[in-house]
Order: sequence, then structure tokens, then C-alpha cells
Amino acid sequence: MLRSTTCAARLAVSRGCGSTGRRWLGQSAVLKQAPSKVPPALWKLGNLNHVAIATPDLEKSTALYRDVFGAEVSAVEALPDHGVYTVFVKLGNTKLELLHPLGNNSPIQNFLDKNKNGGMHHICIEVNDIRAAMSDLTAQNIRCLSKEPKIGAHGKPVVFLHPKDCAGVLVELEQV
Amino acid sequence: MLRSTTCAARLAVSRGCGSTGRRWLGQSAVLKQAPSKVPPALWKLGNLNHVAIATPDLEKSTALYRDVFGAEVSAVEALPDHGVYTVFVKLGNTKLELLHPLGNNSPIQNFLDKNKNGGMHHICIEVNDIRAAMSDLTAQNIRCLSKEPKIGAHGKPVVFLHPKDCAGVLVELEQV
Repeated sequence: MLRSTTCAARLAVSRGCGSTGRRWLGQSAVLKQAPSKVPPALWKLGNLNHVAIATPDLEKSTALYRDVFGAEVSAVEALPDHGVYTVFVKLGNTKLELLHPLGNNSPIQNFLDKNKNGGMHHICIEVNDIRAAMSDLTAQNIRCLSKEPKIGAHGKPVVFLHPKDCAGVLVELEQV
Repeated sequence: MLRSTTCAARLAVSRGCGSTGRRWLGQSAVLKQAPSKVPPALWKLGNLNHVAIATPDLEKSTALYRDVFGAEVSAVEALPDHGVYTVFVKLGNTKLELLHPLGNNSPIQNFLDKNKNGGMHHICIEVNDIRAAMSDLTAQNIRCLSKEPKIGAHGKPVVFLHPKDCAGVLVELEQV
């Protein structure tokens, strides 16, 4: 999905690419005055990679999706560097990621302490350029939870965004 | 995505289609003894239709996805029969559904009372036959939150499943 023309145009103006010197313009003004000066978006959102579900009982949750819902599920994978066991549930267009704590400092233990039955922990959305995204989001007061991208559970650069800046949702961006 | 062979075979046996008289068999036994008697699955999961996010500030959350993340968003729609305002955020392969309470008896008000910043409220997964799904799930002790499918926000039959039976997640099934 491309960043909308409106937004790209606004970014162009706010970054000094416009011709009027005004920092903010209405959509119609931007489109009329600088249609040929709109640069491509610096980064863009893509697919929803997965919805992560933290669970206190990985075997039971895996059985639910495999045996009751009839979904295809992966084998359990231990990711000690990330403090979790994972099982992926394949849906038609995306995945659910079942998470269970591994070790004493699992990043999902606190969530499970507060949500005894488990629940949705985060969503992961793909981006094409994670450093551009981090720079742009930071400039727009969206807090990244690390200064640099980290290598995520899938071996790709990821960053988490502060849930209080994202409508109460912990959002992971993953570069694909 | 098709229900797995294992599960379909198990269903066949549990419903009396097998030839052994035993209610439960291991996978290898089922596959060896009745490969030609396995019926197609009675229902199947499909795509993740949307992830619903309840928000106390619909304008701010819409602006986040539209202006900061650069996503395409729908107009606000008031659904008084469902007690919510909705905005859809288009991702590459699915949607986010931003929800905000409408009226005094909104079904998401309780969630927002407990989650002041908002958060993920439910996931909606598509099925091909909602009545078959409800019958099968009920038989497997997954509680449906209504006895009959209701007409959901998109004009299609939906049912919600009890989060305590679904790994702590409120799951909506929508027939497509």
C-alpha cells in the first residue's frame, strides 16, 4: 500500500519541498500547486505480518487452532534470545503467532501476569525501510522502544512502537 | 485454508463415519483404515478479516494511521445497531477496524473502561459456513456468545466466541 498522495504531498511541503513556504496546506491547495514536486514516500506500510497472542498454555492453544479450528500450525520453536516459544498458525492471508514465556526474563511474562488467560499481545506490520520509518515516526513523536532496529524472531530487522502512541496497541514493524 | 486431513479424519470417526466403532483413533490408524471414507471438512477457516482496535479518541487514532503511518482509511461510519463508530484502515492483506463507542450501551465501553488508552478488542476470522462452525465448536465445548448468528457490521452473519475458550482472545467468525 502506498502512502496516500495527500500525505506524501503534506510531507513534501512540511519538509520544504513545496513552493509556497507555508508549512501546512489543505489537500486541494497542495495538489493544485505542486503536483509534480511530490516525492515518493520515504517508507510505506505493507502487510499485516502477524497478530501475536500470548498464552499461558501453549499446548492447549496450539491444539485449539489445530484440532478445533482445523488450521495449519507450525512446530514449537524455542527462541531463547527472545525469551519465548513460538507456534505459528496459518490463516489464509496472514498468521497468528502464539507466544509462551521461555526463561526467567521473558518479555511477555508481565503481560501474562496481568492477563491470566492470555490475550493479544501485539500486531506486526511490514515496512519496506525500517530506518526511514523510525526516523520519520520519531520526528512525529511516536516513540520507538529501541534506538536501533533489532533482529526479530524471523531474522529480520524489527522495532516496537510505544503502545501509548499507537491507540493503545503495541505495534511491531518488521522490514521485509 | 483447508481443515487438516488429521482433523477431518478425526471428525469423520467421531461422527460415526469410520469403520472401527472406536470414537477416537490415532492419526496413522485413521489414515490407514479409512482413507476413502474421509469426508470434506464441514467448515473451514479462511482469511483474517480484520483486527478490531477500540479507541477512546477515534479522530486521533484515525489520524495516526492516515497521517503518520500513511495508510488508506475509510470515512467514519456510525453503526447505531452495533453501538459503535467504525473506521477501517487498509493494510496490504487485511484491515484494522477502529472502534469507538456510540450511545450509552456500547459493547466496547466496558473494554475501554478497563483499557483507558484503548487496545486490541477482537480478531475476526472468515469461515465458509457459520452454522456448521457453531455446531461443531459447541460440540467441542467452545462457547458461542449467541445462539444464532447475528448480522454483523458488514452485513454478513457473524458470531463471537468466548475469549476464555480461545486463548484469551475474543474471536469473531464471519461468514463470507
